[in-house]
Amino acid sequence: MSVRRRHLLAGGALAGAGAAAGALAFRGDEPAALAAVDTGTAIVPFHGVRQAGVATDPPAHASFVAFTLPAGTDRRQLGRLMRLLSDDAARLTQGAPALGDTDAALALLPARLTITFGFGPGLYEAAGVPSPVKALPSFAIDRLEARWSGGDLLIQICADDALTVAHAQRMLVKDARPFGAVRWVQTGFRRSPGVQPTGFTQRNVLGQLDGTANPTGDALDAAVWAPDGSTTLVVRRIRAEIEKWDLLSVADKENAVGRRMDTGAPFSGAKEHDEPDFAALDANGLPVMPDYAHVTRAHVTDPALKILRRPYNYDGAPNAVGHPDSGLVFASYQRSIERQYVPIQQRLAERDLLNEWITPIGSAVFAVPPGCAPDGWIGAEVLG
Amino acid sequence: MSVRRRHLLAGGALAGAGAAAGALAFRGDEPAALAAVDTGTAIVPFHGVRQAGVATDPPAHASFVAFTLPAGTDRRQLGRLMRLLSDDAARLTQGAPALGDTDAALALLPARLTITFGFGPGLYEAAGVPSPVKALPSFAIDRLEARWSGGDLLIQICADDALTVAHAQRMLVKDARPFGAVRWVQTGFRRSPGVQPTGFTQRNVLGQLDGTANPTGDALDAAVWAPDGSTTLVVRRIRAEIEKWDLLSVADKENAVGRRMDTGAPFSGAKEHDEPDFAALDANGLPVMPDYAHVTRAHVTDPALKILRRPYNYDGAPNAVGHPDSGLVFASYQRSIERQYVPIQQRLAERDLLNEWITPIGSAVFAVPPGCAPDGWIGAEVLG
Ligand code: HEM
Ligand code: HEM
Repeated sequence: MSVRRRHLLAGGALAGAGAAAGALAFRGDEPAALAAVDTGTAIVPFHGVRQAGVATDPPAHASFVAFTLPAGTDRRQLGRLMRLLSDDAARLTQGAPALGDTDAALALLPARLTITFGFGPGLYEAAGVPSPVKALPSFAIDRLEARWSGGDLLIQICADDALTVAHAQRMLVKDARPFGAVRWVQTGFRRSPGVQPTGFTQRNVLGQLDGTANPTGDALDAAVWAPDGSTTLVVRRIRAEIEKWDLLSVADKENAVGRRMDTGAPFSGAKEHDEPDFAALDANGLPVMPDYAHVTRAHVTDPALKILRRPYNYDGAPNAVGHPDSGLVFASYQRSIERQYVPIQQRLAERDLLNEWITPIGSAVFAVPPGCAPDGWIGAEVLG
Repeated sequence: MSVRRRHLLAGGALAGAGAAAGALAFRGDEPAALAAVDTGTAIVPFHGVRQAGVATDPPAHASFVAFTLPAGTDRRQLGRLMRLLSDDAARLTQGAPALGDTDAALALLPARLTITFGFGPGLYEAAGVPSPVKALPSFAIDRLEARWSGGDLLIQICADDALTVAHAQRMLVKDARPFGAVRWVQTGFRRSPGVQPTGFTQRNVLGQLDGTANPTGDALDAAVWAPDGSTTLVVRRIRAEIEKWDLLSVADKENAVGRRMDTGAPFSGAKEHDEPDFAALDANGLPVMPDYAHVTRAHVTDPALKILRRPYNYDGAPNAVGHPDSGLVFASYQRSIERQYVPIQQRLAERDLLNEWITPIGSAVFAVPPGCAPDGWIGAEVLG
């Protein structure tokens, strides 16, 4: 998905920006130095039928920034806003400063930067257009806090470098704030580049291999993308009850999920990517995959009904008595929230052993409009 | 400074832990996979005459965790605490789980993890020993907040991976909390591994090349280490007034520091590492290096009076109107706070153009005791 700055330079389109980047960022700028920093110069294309940052292999750092539009916001204003933000995103993701960038040198190492826009129900209301998404129903497990919930516009900023994310966020927020108030910001992390080989499943803050059963390839396409290149995003902030989790044996942790902690293999298999066999019975005639385990409850067979999970870990400051403030910024992409996300979440809310150790404290839904061409902007179908 | 897991395996000392690590973290575990993840398996030795995490090239992520000791804490308790924490640090930094690690799999990719202990004046008081450090005098520029200031014990946790830092913090805090309350936690970041070539100066959240004039090699040794292997640490939380900073032209930004934004060269020179010439005059007979520029005011000639700056960026959530919450967790190491840090800070507090755009909001000082041998523990000289 990501191409290297060197290739882009050869391609020509961004030669100006790229050359400036090299010069500003590392005065030496020998080929040898650049070769050593593929991670910094790696670029993910911004333009296309679908927005980047969804199917893109998730980079190490993410910031989700949600805005509230003031009463009276209209379609014309929203069009101006999205033209501006699309232009910022097109530049920043390619390693070029935003127009009027106040710290241009910080734009020059994109490190696979993606900037993805989501529209909440309130944005459609302001635009006078029916919303393709609506807030989730409430679930018995929810302990939602307003400060992590809702939002009219979402900017999801992901890159392999935290300084790149901070700079892109600064520029985007500066351009968006005349149009709306910052409602919440959630930052998260995954493994740093090079810490484990790409393609291997990463562990989350609970120590679990997380992402094993995600759809890939054609199955991902079927689950995530509408024919017009749009999709939807659910962002749930889910606190991990680390204090209770720490009391569990490894066997108990495994039982909550139905997979082994070390290998990630389902109880019914030997290797991580073995398909769980929910019909398998043990010597006592009991199901090998526990009925109420997270995987058993969450599993979906029809590829069109799967979801694409793209979670980031968060780890805030522990409180005075030393209890961690950890969990997941759980982001899920799917064609339809109603047909795909809600039934899974419903089953998990009803009965999932893992519920004992996780608590949803934030919730938001966004439509993710199609991508755009170099002469277009994100949201033109709705706001143009 | 850092050696690779593979070499350690060959060396034998940690063969057990290392082998377990490979097996748990990546089931495949072929040499090819390991070779690709040098960043994850890179180890910094824990034992030695001096603590790691000071002269060590700063990795991408840091967490500074300060504790308050309850009244009545005595030397014997402190000895128990430091034995426990030294053992945790010795294991975790080498990629092995802590004793009683509740998520052992998260210990297995140390990514250059260092764990460094600092003792505040209150710890010495509790131990009944004269403190080698005392709180800084107050400076006119200070706007200190209690929630970022002081502390009896500091644990500085640095690694190239945020999940590694989070896990180490969780284990260390769990062991430390029976002995004291968490007073503050400050996390920060630098460039991710591979984003720019090692050895090149990094930019900070203000877009400046930061670290150019730091002492290296023998000069570093002279400035930082006492003969017994001890040093001292000042942690200042310094807010960047980004809104004001964004109003400046590049020329104004350069003038505040006395160095070019693009190359980092001093006004009196052409290249980043040219020594600033404070006697040079321009055509009008004015000093080329402005009198009140940050570099002019901060500069020290005597190598024994320099300080080693090891700052991390922070970037919290912007507020509702979209103003960033950014700045530096400014960490400085030196043999003597009184003779080295205070005079520089005094000159900067009196007159430094940069003061218009930076505000100290937190302050803490710690003595950093010598390192220890494999059969020893940090702080034994004071608490043993
Ligand atoms: C903190 C919260 C959560 C944690 C720690 C967690 C953890 C896990 C783990 C360890 C697995 C097994 C490995 C894998 O396939 O990734 C898994 C699978 C899965 N989870 Fe979660 N999960 C959480 C929340 C959720 C939520 C909110 C949903 C959706 C509403 C969800 C849906 C799924 C699905 C669909 C699977 C794959 C099931 C299969 O087909 O095998 N999870 N989760
Ligand atoms: C947010 C706060 C600060 C920022 C943004 C900042 C920025 C800079 C920059 C850009 C340089 C020039 C490049 C370099 O040598 O690194 C510099 C140099 C320096 N700074 Fe700071 N600084 C800050 C706070 C401080 C503080 C609190 C101190 C000590 C009390 C300090 C001491 C120094 C010293 C000693 C030098 C090297 C001067 C020389 O010999 O050339 N700085 N700083």
